Amino acid sequence: MSTPWLHRFAQRTQAVKSSAIRELLKLTQNPGVISFAGGLPAPEVFPTQRFQEACQKVLAEKGPEALQYSATEGYLPLREMIAANTARYGIMAKPENVLITSGSQQALDLIGKLLINRGDRILVEAPTYLGALQAFTVYGADYVSVPIDHDGLRTGQLEDALRSGPKFMYVLPNFQNPGGVTLSEGRRHELLLLADKYGIPVIEDDPYGQLRYEGEHLPPLVVVDRENLRRDNGYTLGNVIYLSTFSKTLAPGLRLAWILAPAEVIAKLVQLKQGADLHTATFNQMVAYEVARDGYLDEHVKLIRKVYCERRDAMLQALEQFFPTEVTWTRPQGGLFLWVTLPVGMDCHELFQAAIAENVAFVPGDCFYVTDDAEARRHLRLNFSYSRPEVIREGVRRLSIAVRHQMQEHQLVPTAV
Amino acid sequence: MSTPWLHRFAQRTQAVKSSAIRELLKLTQNPGVISFAGGLPAPEVFPTQRFQEACQKVLAEKGPEALQYSATEGYLPLREMIAANTARYGIMAKPENVLITSGSQQALDLIGKLLINRGDRILVEAPTYLGALQAFTVYGADYVSVPIDHDGLRTGQLEDALRSGPKFMYVLPNFQNPGGVTLSEGRRHELLLLADKYGIPVIEDDPYGQLRYEGEHLPPLVVVDRENLRRDNGYTLGNVIYLSTFSKTLAPGLRLAWILAPAEVIAKLVQLKQGADLHTATFNQMVAYEVARDGYLDEHVKLIRKVYCERRDAMLQALEQFFPTEVTWTRPQGGLFLWVTLPVGMDCHELFQAAIAENVAFVPGDCFYVTDDAEARRHLRLNFSYSRPEVIREGVRRLSIAVRHQMQEHQLVPTAV
Repeated sequence: MSTPWLHRFAQRTQAVKSSAIRELLKLTQNPGVISFAGGLPAPEVFPTQRFQEACQKVLAEKGPEALQYSATEGYLPLREMIAANTARYGIMAKPENVLITSGSQQALDLIGKLLINRGDRILVEAPTYLGALQAFTVYGADYVSVPIDHDGLRTGQLEDALRSGPKFMYVLPNFQNPGGVTLSEGRRHELLLLADKYGIPVIEDDPYGQLRYEGEHLPPLVVVDRENLRRDNGYTLGNVIYLSTFSKTLAPGLRLAWILAPAEVIAKLVQLKQGADLHTATFNQMVAYEVARDGYLDEHVKLIRKVYCERRDAMLQALEQFFPTEVTWTRPQGGLFLWVTLPVGMDCHELFQAAIAENVAFVPGDCFYVTDDAEARRHLRLNFSYSRPEVIREGVRRLSIAVRHQMQEHQLVPTAV
Repeated sequence: MSTPWLHRFAQRTQAVKSSAIRELLKLTQNPGVISFAGGLPAPEVFPTQRFQEACQKVLAEKGPEALQYSATEGYLPLREMIAANTARYGIMAKPENVLITSGSQQALDLIGKLLINRGDRILVEAPTYLGALQAFTVYGADYVSVPIDHDGLRTGQLEDALRSGPKFMYVLPNFQNPGGVTLSEGRRHELLLLADKYGIPVIEDDPYGQLRYEGEHLPPLVVVDRENLRRDNGYTLGNVIYLSTFSKTLAPGLRLAWILAPAEVIAKLVQLKQGADLHTATFNQMVAYEVARDGYLDEHVKLIRKVYCERRDAMLQALEQFFPTEVTWTRPQGGLFLWVTLPVGMDCHELFQAAIAENVAFVPGDCFYVTDDAEARRHLRLNFSYSRPEVIREGVRRLSIAVRHQMQEHQLVPTAV
């Protein structure tokens, strides 16, 4: 790099660290590797034929509109559909409460851009979604974290964290990524009462809420918030900004998600989105609307639930069968991931190398923490949505070999199967 | 807004000003208004049928891939095609020099995110593209500007501006938005020698380069830069980051553009894009590749040139016929816009109101300046790509009525037709 500005430029951008995880995840794409690393939907369930019909219809009937520039807020019929679907859960949203984004990642980016000034503290779960940390860190976020357990964020530890003055709280209440755990109903109330007491907005990220395989649907934070605070004039008031996406219910390759928020907040986010990418692809919004309409999305989600439930069960059964009892894991009631905890003294990065040698991959748990300590390195995230049951079974078998190997290396004696 | 955080939030976000132009442009959508305001391609030339075929092919042959998550860098065959097309102009680019973005607006946003720290000075043309100012201002940019004339940026005034230490220079060399002017070849050399002398990178925004209706194609800055500096090892070195888009040659509703830059710069931008929207829609990239391949894009661009050339000529003829001689305008050799200058003492916002009363609209010129002074308010940007020739003619006639009206208001006597 002999051009002077490039040299200076390289110095200036050290803050954008070469992401270690990117390098590491390249290994998971080696041929023959069974990867539990990505958060990929099963391609077998993409409704490809319905997409074909929708593309034809949109281009034949509304081609000039579908291929043209459009409003930053998003395609009105799609925003109306999202508002109507949301109303089923008790959220009284109108189209002006809905902003279509280019995937949930853009929703996180726009929220970071709007709310974070350099040095602001953001309250997150430990562990939390890696992509949110990426989005917020660019804007200079610092973090305070509250640990999760099998009932989600430990609200008993929340007030201490709130006293440190975070700008907002970011939580994934349903089938958390990476933990796989769900925030209990009682804790939802506690969390929102505390958020209200301290006047801290809550970002509720809910990509998996519809993918529940057992148990009862729990009310989203945005609904509990309204009930808690007896807010009675629709969506004008409220501490909660709610995010969801079509990536897990239709297809991630479209990059379509949405933000539900008070209209004043949406208006600010629209201005930022205009500067960020003008608008989300018109064609994709119109095609997604055609695919989802007339109840199709609901029927399709039923199919996804069935397929992913089988895969979750296959993974749980394989873990039970192959893994030593010293290793534990969560039993998610929905979503895409489960979370494995290794015995004290083991290290997920050492295990990653051993696993790659056995042709199986996962995401090391420390990627999901804002601090780097030994506790963070005792975890792995396993995805169960992408691979077929027989592949999951074989992958877990291979992983168990790597685990036993590593336990022996650390002079931990794994129990015999 | 009775929730405490929303109240504070509204105070915190005053920096994101309610965009006056957004409000103003709503008026241009009134029924019956002929709008020269937008920068919209002609919908009549969208290759809708080729899109239908491409959608069918992609979904039938590669549905699971097209609907799935994909690499942040973009779809490799599309990046290879862009690199190969670019090579025709003498730019030795490889796929690792190409990043697919969600429209050029995202390219501007990512460049702002990477290069601008609060208070940094950015060198722009006066006037310049409004969307770039929106993208850069969010990151706290200050500006220094250099005026344009009929040969583009006035390089004679560039060195003074460079001495003020700008972080980078942002220029639109071909059929500039909004000026419609093209940077002469001599000035391209001067600009790049000065950029090299001061070690200042150049962002070359070239959305319209292929839409030339007369005259000779001029070499892009990125090519002149290589020749100027005798750079001989491909694209590793160089002061220029080059942006272009499919929005004006295929369809803006896809949101597909690209950045061409040294591989080290692309690597940093990829990390930022990962946090901004993960990747641009897989489906759109694969469809655009199928539409553009086998020489189709080149043939299609010939059709667009023919249609837009007719519309430019219709606008120039109508201006000649209806406008008083005190008003002047540029005669662009390509692109989508021409730039009108009003007599001293007139105001484009007063004219805008008078024009809306006559059911015709444009973008007031001061939107494109980083300073607000009387000079900035003497201009209007007119788009000629969107409307059919007979509509253009009628719109210019209506606008001329508003112009004469305003001249009389200001005691300027318009010449009789």
